[in-house]
Amino acid sequence: MALSDVLPDEDPTLTLGELATLVGGELKGDPLTRVTGLGTLERATPSQISFLANPRYRAQLSTTQAAAVLMKPEDAVGYEGQAVLLANPYLAFAQLTHRFDRTPRPAVGVHASAVIARSARLGEGVRIGPQVVIGEDVVIGARVIIESGSVIHDRVHVGDDCVIRSRVVIHHDCHLGQRVSIQSGAVIGGDGFGFAPARGAWHKIAQIGAVILHDDVDIGVNTTIDRGALEDTVIHTGAIIDNQVQIAHNVVIGAHTAIAACCGIAGSTRIGAHCVLAGGVGVVGHIEICDRVQITGMSMITKSITEPGSYSSGTAFDSTDNWKKMAVRLRRLDELAQRVRALEDATDQS
Amino acid sequence: MALSDVLPDEDPTLTLGELATLVGGELKGDPLTRVTGLGTLERATPSQISFLANPRYRAQLSTTQAAAVLMKPEDAVGYEGQAVLLANPYLAFAQLTHRFDRTPRPAVGVHASAVIARSARLGEGVRIGPQVVIGEDVVIGARVIIESGSVIHDRVHVGDDCVIRSRVVIHHDCHLGQRVSIQSGAVIGGDGFGFAPARGAWHKIAQIGAVILHDDVDIGVNTTIDRGALEDTVIHTGAIIDNQVQIAHNVVIGAHTAIAACCGIAGSTRIGAHCVLAGGVGVVGHIEICDRVQITGMSMITKSITEPGSYSSGTAFDSTDNWKKMAVRLRRLDELAQRVRALEDATDQS
Amino acid sequence: MALSDVLPDEDPTLTLGELATLVGGELKGDPLTRVTGLGTLERATPSQISFLANPRYRAQLSTTQAAAVLMKPEDAVGYEGQAVLLANPYLAFAQLTHRFDRTPRPAVGVHASAVIARSARLGEGVRIGPQVVIGEDVVIGARVIIESGSVIHDRVHVGDDCVIRSRVVIHHDCHLGQRVSIQSGAVIGGDGFGFAPARGAWHKIAQIGAVILHDDVDIGVNTTIDRGALEDTVIHTGAIIDNQVQIAHNVVIGAHTAIAACCGIAGSTRIGAHCVLAGGVGVVGHIEICDRVQITGMSMITKSITEPGSYSSGTAFDSTDNWKKMAVRLRRLDELAQRVRALEDATDQS
Repeated sequence: MALSDVLPDEDPTLTLGELATLVGGELKGDPLTRVTGLGTLERATPSQISFLANPRYRAQLSTTQAAAVLMKPEDAVGYEGQAVLLANPYLAFAQLTHRFDRTPRPAVGVHASAVIARSARLGEGVRIGPQVVIGEDVVIGARVIIESGSVIHDRVHVGDDCVIRSRVVIHHDCHLGQRVSIQSGAVIGGDGFGFAPARGAWHKIAQIGAVILHDDVDIGVNTTIDRGALEDTVIHTGAIIDNQVQIAHNVVIGAHTAIAACCGIAGSTRIGAHCVLAGGVGVVGHIEICDRVQITGMSMITKSITEPGSYSSGTAFDSTDNWKKMAVRLRRLDELAQRVRALEDATDQS
Repeated sequence: MALSDVLPDEDPTLTLGELATLVGGELKGDPLTRVTGLGTLERATPSQISFLANPRYRAQLSTTQAAAVLMKPEDAVGYEGQAVLLANPYLAFAQLTHRFDRTPRPAVGVHASAVIARSARLGEGVRIGPQVVIGEDVVIGARVIIESGSVIHDRVHVGDDCVIRSRVVIHHDCHLGQRVSIQSGAVIGGDGFGFAPARGAWHKIAQIGAVILHDDVDIGVNTTIDRGALEDTVIHTGAIIDNQVQIAHNVVIGAHTAIAACCGIAGSTRIGAHCVLAGGVGVVGHIEICDRVQITGMSMITKSITEPGSYSSGTAFDSTDNWKKMAVRLRRLDELAQRVRALEDATDQS
Repeated sequence: MALSDVLPDEDPTLTLGELATLVGGELKGDPLTRVTGLGTLERATPSQISFLANPRYRAQLSTTQAAAVLMKPEDAVGYEGQAVLLANPYLAFAQLTHRFDRTPRPAVGVHASAVIARSARLGEGVRIGPQVVIGEDVVIGARVIIESGSVIHDRVHVGDDCVIRSRVVIHHDCHLGQRVSIQSGAVIGGDGFGFAPARGAWHKIAQIGAVILHDDVDIGVNTTIDRGALEDTVIHTGAIIDNQVQIAHNVVIGAHTAIAACCGIAGSTRIGAHCVLAGGVGVVGHIEICDRVQITGMSMITKSITEPGSYSSGTAFDSTDNWKKMAVRLRRLDELAQRVRALEDATDQS
């Protein structure tokens, strides 16, 4: 038996006509043109299809070699080349990428080297790779993919069509909805950082909550989501979380919120729906951020946010020499403000 | 053989009388009340016990459904409900969580799929899960738990009662004291980042020190602690380190210091005892931080600290529009200060 | 069969004469002096060799117990002890560390518990440890070391003399040159964070590029390097990347650039050659940083950099009390600047 089903069975190439039908677009060009792949406007070969989603790349239309370009009708005005016209070319491009994706899947069934507890229940069509460990009373839904070396602890529930990449750990009693995707190295349901201080030492608080990942949640590589202390840590439907993000115990993330790489969310904080946190953002514990908040990269959020909008902290970068002068002045900013006040008083009196 | 001993053998439920004895508290209420779990004041059910540790939750006493509340005697004045009175209710709560903890343990013994070097010595009562790898001349103490997929390299020493969760790596020659806990995905003793520059290229310096984790140290998920270059990296007794923390080679962390998630400590820095670093703090290399220092979240510490106390860096967050104005002004702060000086000179002369 | 070849076959000890020849230095002292290890000037024992690379440690020459000291000829003037004189003592020290390195290597061959696809091709002298998984059509070069629990997915190419430590994941179609080193827990070729927004939800874009690591690249513990969306993510020759670094899809890192721990580089950014990023630096996406740029710790780089030199952002740390005053003033900096302008106007008029 092969380790994996290397490629989709079907040939991924298609004609431009088939492609237009697939994405629901209007074809401007020869429906028999052969499409063998995808490329950027700048680098696509004559058998690849490309897309124009961001107007700033419009100038590349005049030089692109692409077989055809996915674009909005209004962008195609005056464009001579072949095109597929539709309202959301970026979404169409996203759909097409899956056609050309060569990610191997473990072969259907359970690899001989996997260790599966007798009480675990596996759905139909599961693909469980080498060295996977599945604990007691685990439930794995239909068509779930679990790659090499992942560990699913006792009583975890994995919904239908989830994809669990390599060397993931899901600790006991966590619950995944349907179509949840977890990238390699992520750890779901590790112990939260809970300790009671007494007599100069720290006493561990067992973390008896779990983690709930609702449908269509996407978790990045080496990201860590801690189990709740008493209640659960919850990530709502369709939230997407990038690599090396840390989500502490009892955090709640709203539906369709996006959290970029290297963010850290401290314990018991609640983030609303449709928020976007850029990379490296830190959010302190026990606060609430409302729906539709954007936070720019590496900002530190120390208080609740109750109004939608964009928020930032930090300083702009500069040459280290200029930055040092600024930093010295900054430490004396309070004094400077007092001197301005004194000048104002002097001016008023004069 | 089952993969795990799913639950503590005993029924975790107990009476309020037994509970008061267990935590050494004074019972105000019916000793026969049945307690089946733990909950927050806000959400505890009538068979769960709760606790009041932070006065800010005092108002919830009037509405809680909890079977009883762990609290200080002074907080119980005027409280009509059932209570267990003691000096440190949060510590008592911490003790009770272990009673209701359902973390599965690998079955006693060595799982058939584990690979154990012939020269390794295993203490009595060890629980070694599936796919674990234990190298040559490793010593594993009594009652140690090692979960699935962890790798313990040659000559590592693991003291009695340590708990090593899933997919941990401990590299060669590292030493763990007793009751050390390492969460999933952590890597202890990877190579430090040591390279000698020559002729425009980097030449690797083999890292021939190790990592010493003293008794009762707690290491978080996906945290990385590098081995020393020549001498050892050392974490002293009872220090607790959260998830995704990076500790570079030759760092020394003092006893009972707490380091929250996403901190990074650069090489050869020494941090004292009883310090607390909030999340995302960065500390540069080759400095010393004395005992009992607190550092607030996402601060950058660039020089030694010789006085206990609290330290911070960064800026407060604001709406991105306001923040941009601030950031522009900040780049011209030196110029602003010079203009204030000029005004002062002008005012003095007038 | 032993799990590992525990130690280099040869006795690591050597004479001072042999050592001087090995590093190409001029010996001042007894060539028969026995050297059994390496130590710092401060702590070396009389059978260990030490080095003086940084003039700030020069004073320690008078008290060191070291058998001999690697140093520059100009630093040896007036030094009475034994020495090995050469132009780059730190490089010589780096060379010697490998002599005393005790890192175990998996035994030559393939461990019985490893799972190797039939179509994989293994070079001569490979050392493949327990629980390793190697997918279909993988090519592993000569003398490659792969430690326990690592997963190499389909069609990956690993060049000669690469070292892949424990529990590494390399996803499909990635390409490693020669002598690439990947520390434990790193994940190469995970999916980039690419989603198309439509109707309030995120639609995954399959990541069909790969990761290319050129010769002599060094990747740290738990570091994550995402595969490209359409084209590849590329790390050029001799770049060194520390622990817990996140490199997003389509990033290009130039040759011999060093990136310290906890940095995050967002998608499609290009960093030049011979750059140095200190720990915790964040770089936004879609920008370019030219060759020979240094960035100080925890800086946030938000725009392209076209001039070599050193760059910084952030604020200096202070006591939290002082910092709070500063932070309050800072939020009103725009107002303060306007007040200074008003004073200047008033002064001009007077």
